[in-house]
Amino acid sequence: MSLAQRAAALDQEHEATDRRADFDLPPGVVYLDGNSLGALPSAVPAVIADVVARQWGRDLVLSWETSDWWQAPTRVGDLIAPLVGAAPGQVVVGDTTSVSLYQAVGAAARLRPERDVVVTDPGSFPTDLYVIAGAARAAGLRVVTAAPADVPRVLAALGDDVALVALSHVDFRTGELFDLGGLTRSVHDAGALAVWDLSHSAGAVPVHLDRHEVDLAVGCGYKYLNGGPGAPAFTYVASRHQAAYEPPVQGWHGHADPFAMETEHRFADGISRARVGTPPMLSVLALEASVGVLAGSTIEAVRARSLSLTAFLLEALAELAPQVHVVTPDEPSRRGSHVAFRHPRAPEIVDGLVARGVVCDARRPDLVRWGVAAPYLRHRDLLDATQHLHEVLLEL
Amino acid sequence: MSLAQRAAALDQEHEATDRRADFDLPPGVVYLDGNSLGALPSAVPAVIADVVARQWGRDLVLSWETSDWWQAPTRVGDLIAPLVGAAPGQVVVGDTTSVSLYQAVGAAARLRPERDVVVTDPGSFPTDLYVIAGAARAAGLRVVTAAPADVPRVLAALGDDVALVALSHVDFRTGELFDLGGLTRSVHDAGALAVWDLSHSAGAVPVHLDRHEVDLAVGCGYKYLNGGPGAPAFTYVASRHQAAYEPPVQGWHGHADPFAMETEHRFADGISRARVGTPPMLSVLALEASVGVLAGSTIEAVRARSLSLTAFLLEALAELAPQVHVVTPDEPSRRGSHVAFRHPRAPEIVDGLVARGVVCDARRPDLVRWGVAAPYLRHRDLLDATQHLHEVLLEL
Repeated sequence: MSLAQRAAALDQEHEATDRRADFDLPPGVVYLDGNSLGALPSAVPAVIADVVARQWGRDLVLSWETSDWWQAPTRVGDLIAPLVGAAPGQVVVGDTTSVSLYQAVGAAARLRPERDVVVTDPGSFPTDLYVIAGAARAAGLRVVTAAPADVPRVLAALGDDVALVALSHVDFRTGELFDLGGLTRSVHDAGALAVWDLSHSAGAVPVHLDRHEVDLAVGCGYKYLNGGPGAPAFTYVASRHQAAYEPPVQGWHGHADPFAMETEHRFADGISRARVGTPPMLSVLALEASVGVLAGSTIEAVRARSLSLTAFLLEALAELAPQVHVVTPDEPSRRGSHVAFRHPRAPEIVDGLVARGVVCDARRPDLVRWGVAAPYLRHRDLLDATQHLHEVLLEL
Repeated sequence: MSLAQRAAALDQEHEATDRRADFDLPPGVVYLDGNSLGALPSAVPAVIADVVARQWGRDLVLSWETSDWWQAPTRVGDLIAPLVGAAPGQVVVGDTTSVSLYQAVGAAARLRPERDVVVTDPGSFPTDLYVIAGAARAAGLRVVTAAPADVPRVLAALGDDVALVALSHVDFRTGELFDLGGLTRSVHDAGALAVWDLSHSAGAVPVHLDRHEVDLAVGCGYKYLNGGPGAPAFTYVASRHQAAYEPPVQGWHGHADPFAMETEHRFADGISRARVGTPPMLSVLALEASVGVLAGSTIEAVRARSLSLTAFLLEALAELAPQVHVVTPDEPSRRGSHVAFRHPRAPEIVDGLVARGVVCDARRPDLVRWGVAAPYLRHRDLLDATQHLHEVLLEL
C-alpha cells in the first residue's frame, strides 16, 4: 500500500477522534506548531466577544459575581484535572508557567526544610532551568542537574539532601516522553518531592497525577490545551500537601477571606491557596472554552490518535526524507506528541516549509520540530507535510 | 445656582475633556467602580476580535513575529510611560500586580544587601501587605509598618537598616493621595529605595516617576487604565537601576537571548529583564487598545477634570447626603480619584444604589467607595448618583 493509501485508511480508521471541525484552521495550512501555540477552537471567538461586550462592557464589575469570574481559576482547573489524571479540587489556573513553577519549587522547598538540593534535568525547557535557579537562590538550595535516566543514581548518591526533583514530562526538543510514574517512585523512595512540568504532555498524553502520587505539577495552557497566546498555566497540588502548601508569592486571591481585607495573610483552604493576584480573565475564559473542546474526548482517545499519527509520520519521514536524523524515540511508550529531526540547514528548512504552508519551528542549531496535535491533524496532513519536506530538501 | 445648574455649567466648561464617546457604557448606569474595573473602551471589541480570529486563528504561531507579539509588553509599557511620568524604556507589562510587586520588592532587597528592613503602610491594599510579607520572608527581611505620615520618623529611627519603603500612592479605602515626591526624598535621604504601588493613581493622577527619582513602581492595568478584567500590571524600573535589577522569578522572556535556549540565565539589557514568562496576550493587547484611548489626552487634563468632578461630588454629598461621613480629603493635593464615605449600613446602601443603576462598591465594615474615572464621567452623572444616594438613605 502506498503512503497515500495508508494515510487514507488510517484516517478512516480514526475518524471517530477527528475533531478538526471544532477548530478554525486557515485553509491551505498544515499546522505543526500546536506544541507551541495550539490552534483556535471554533467556540472561542463567540465566547470572548461575549466576555468583552457583555461581561466586561455591560455588566462591568458585577461580573465578578454574575458571571462568576471569581471562581473561574478553580473552575477551569477542574476542567483540566481529568486530562492530567487529577481528582477535582487539585488544579487551578492563573499565572504563567514560569511563575507557577517558581511557586511550586518554593513551596516544595518549604515542605522539606531540612534538605537543600533541587535536582533537575539540564535538558529542560530553559525557563524551567532559569526559574529553578532563581527559586533555589531565593530558598538557599543547591541545584544539581541530571538527565532523567540518571536521576535514580543521583538520588542514591545525595540521599537525604534532596528536597525536590523537578522534571519535564516530555523533552521539548526531542519529544521523548519520560517515565513519570517510575521516576516519581524513585523520588519518593529518596524522601523527596516530585514536581513535574507537564507543558508538553497536558492535553496530549495521559498523565495520571493522582495514580502516580505526584506531589506538585505545572503545565502550559497554550500548547495542547489550545488556550490561546499566553494562556495561563495550571498548577496541581496533591490534596495531601494542600494544608502545608505555602508558595512564596502570596496574594489576596489565595487568602482565606479575601474581602475581609485583613492585614495578615492566611492561606485559603484547598487549591485556592495557590491563587495569587487577579488573573487575566480574557485569557482565563478563552482557556475555559478551549479546554471544553478537549473535554469532548477522553485523553486516552486523544493519545491513541496521536500515537497513530506520529507512528505514521515516522514511517513517512523514513521513506520520503531519509536524509534527516529523527531524534524522537520510536517506541510508543517513550514518544510524546511531537516529532523532531536534525538537519544542518534546519532554519532554512523551516522557512521553506512555512512558505509552503507547513507551519512548524526550528530550535537552534539544527532541530526541526513538528507538533502533532491529534484533535485537529489527520494522517494525510502529515503526509502532505512530509511531501513538502521532501521537496524543500531537494531545493536546498 | 442649583446643583443641577452647577453640574450643567461645569460639564460645559469641561466639555473638551469628556471622552465618554470613546467608551461603551450601558444605558441607564452611572458607573462609579472604574477604580476597581475600568469601563470598556469602544475600540477594544474589534481589536480583540482581530487578535482572536486573525492573529491567533489565521496567523497562528507566526504572530509572534508578524503581529509583533514578542515586543507587546515593552510596547504597551512605553504607552503607559507618559501617563506616569516615565521616559521610554522603563515600563513593561505582563504579570499581575501581586507578582510584579513581589519582583520589585525582591529586586530592591538585592540592591541593598547590607540592609534588612522593609517599611510599608499597614493601610495598603491587602495584597501589597501579603506580597511584601512573603517577599520579606523569602529575602530574610523584617517588615516594619508605618502610615505614610510616619515614614520619615521611622526612617530616622531605623537609619541604615531600611532597604526599601513600599507604599501606595493612593489609599484604596479613603482615596487619600500621598506625597510621592516628598516621601521619596525622605526614603533616599535614608539611603533606601522607594517602591511605589500606583494602582489607584496611574491613569488618573500625574505621577512624575522620573522627576521624583522613584526607584521602582508597579501599577494595575484594569483600574484607571481600563485594560479589562485582570489586565496585566506594569512595572517601572528606573534606568539607573536596570543593570543591577535582578528579580527573584527569572523567566525566559527576560533572558538576554531567549531563543538561544541557554542553560544559564542571563538578564536582558534594559527593562526587558523585568519580563518573566509568556504573557497573556489577549489581556495584554486589550490593555494596549485601552491605554491608546487615554493617550489622546494628557494626564494633566484628566487630572483637572477629575478634580473638578470630585470637588463637585463632595459639594453634592454635603448638600444631599449630610448623614454620611466623607473620609476623602477635601484638599485637592491630597485627593486621588475616588471619594469614600462611611455609614453603618454601607452594604445595604451599595445594594440599593446598584439596584438603581449606580454601580459602586463597599469595603467592610462601613465604607462606600465611588470611583470617579474622569474620562467617562460627567458632573451630572455624579449629581444623579448623589440624588439616588439621597433616596436610598431615605428608604433605609
